[in-house]
Amino acid sequence: MIGIFDSGLGGLTVARAIMDELPGYNLTYFGDTARTPYGAKSAATVIKYALEDTQFLISRGAQMIVMACNSASSMAMESVTRTFSVPVFEVITPAVELAASLSPHGRIGVIGTRATINSGIYEKKIREKRPDARVYAVPCPLLVPLVEEGWINKPETTMIIKKYLHPLKMRKIDTLILGCTHYPILKPIIEKKIGKQTIIIDSSTAIARAVKARLVEHPDAGEKFSRNGETYFYVSDMTKQFKKTAGMILKKSISLELADT
Amino acid sequence: MIGIFDSGLGGLTVARAIMDELPGYNLTYFGDTARTPYGAKSAATVIKYALEDTQFLISRGAQMIVMACNSASSMAMESVTRTFSVPVFEVITPAVELAASLSPHGRIGVIGTRATINSGIYEKKIREKRPDARVYAVPCPLLVPLVEEGWINKPETTMIIKKYLHPLKMRKIDTLILGCTHYPILKPIIEKKIGKQTIIIDSSTAIARAVKARLVEHPDAGEKFSRNGETYFYVSDMTKQFKKTAGMILKKSISLELADT
Repeated sequence: MIGIFDSGLGGLTVARAIMDELPGYNLTYFGDTARTPYGAKSAATVIKYALEDTQFLISRGAQMIVMACNSASSMAMESVTRTFSVPVFEVITPAVELAASLSPHGRIGVIGTRATINSGIYEKKIREKRPDARVYAVPCPLLVPLVEEGWINKPETTMIIKKYLHPLKMRKIDTLILGCTHYPILKPIIEKKIGKQTIIIDSSTAIARAVKARLVEHPDAGEKFSRNGETYFYVSDMTKQFKKTAGMILKKSISLELADT
Repeated sequence: MIGIFDSGLGGLTVARAIMDELPGYNLTYFGDTARTPYGAKSAATVIKYALEDTQFLISRGAQMIVMACNSASSMAMESVTRTFSVPVFEVITPAVELAASLSPHGRIGVIGTRATINSGIYEKKIREKRPDARVYAVPCPLLVPLVEEGWINKPETTMIIKKYLHPLKMRKIDTLILGCTHYPILKPIIEKKIGKQTIIIDSSTAIARAVKARLVEHPDAGEKFSRNGETYFYVSDMTKQFKKTAGMILKKSISLELADT
């Protein structure tokens, strides 16, 4: 069973990408909607929540953990891998590797929540892979609420995206990492505003490929994973809006269950 | 000791109003920044959090509880009064009483979070006070993140406020209740967009007057409250941004402490 968690529902973009890359694999998703969002909270709090989320997934049979949350990935990776023995994936490294290899001139932009950007993890990881790179990171804290409200095609959203991307456009970035699982939903507008010449790295696709590579490279590990096509979607709090948003992100109707945490 | 809690920092507008109305009274504030916001969460979750927040304040010596959070006020009042013996104030009734008495033609608008508006509590309470009233309630879920980001004077914020208020303007409301503790920060823009002829009810001022009235009407109760001017501000999660936002709302520098919850 592949276990995926996120601060809320944005991580469903990762679940969707993993289901596309690894059809049939059993998968359990946990969205911490009772405490969402993580993106503006402290490292201590995000680490505590990430440990609890992982524990829940393991109690449900997860043999591998995918942290679909950039804020958790940037702050809690060490604590989670130290505490649990199952393989743990975070969403940052695969996106960084893709960006470092694809960027023509090493001018790489990153957008994310305030917590993710303030952690400095993208700069650090990009420089490890590509020391010549220039990294420009911009926090875009309003994009998560805009997506959660379904304000995808509103002119205000376009204006706010344009404002956030302006400094990156000025820096003439050639590659842009979408460093938050909510942002793929806004990709068409981001693409339009940053310009077609910029390569856009969608971290949900990158992580899904990394998980697939792991299962293919380590067939012994891979074989242990059941492929009955069972999928479970849990949340720590349930509302009508959460159901609606989940359907919008996954582009299909799912059975969202309240987790007994 | 007067105890005040909110889902986060918006309730500091209530703390400020109470400090203005009752200078010198000892006061403890608790902002649940680790689980903020409450406004999009379910009644079950908000009730659980409100009980825990109240318990924390009582453990710190609170003899009276002010729920400075509209979402908690609309969903958790019954549970909190049933569970604890101290007097409990919610922010909705004082604002409703003021609106019902001041509205010239009973055309009353209410804006708030999705949780507050969906609860229907404003309509219910307004009709109890003024059965002839027509109530128009509109959820404005993006205003809290905009305030928390400090996007007070940005054109996008003005556009979003105009869009939210449009249906209320069409209904020709004569009175508008700001049904969220964050909204007083946006009052100048709201005032401009809804029109000067509309009476604006700021729930933080209304609740502060209700608390004062209680202490003055019941001097026996009032006398038990210490007036050493001691104020304590606790949060369940601490970041630089929280400190900055707290200073912006209170318009002065305070010592924000991490609660040992």
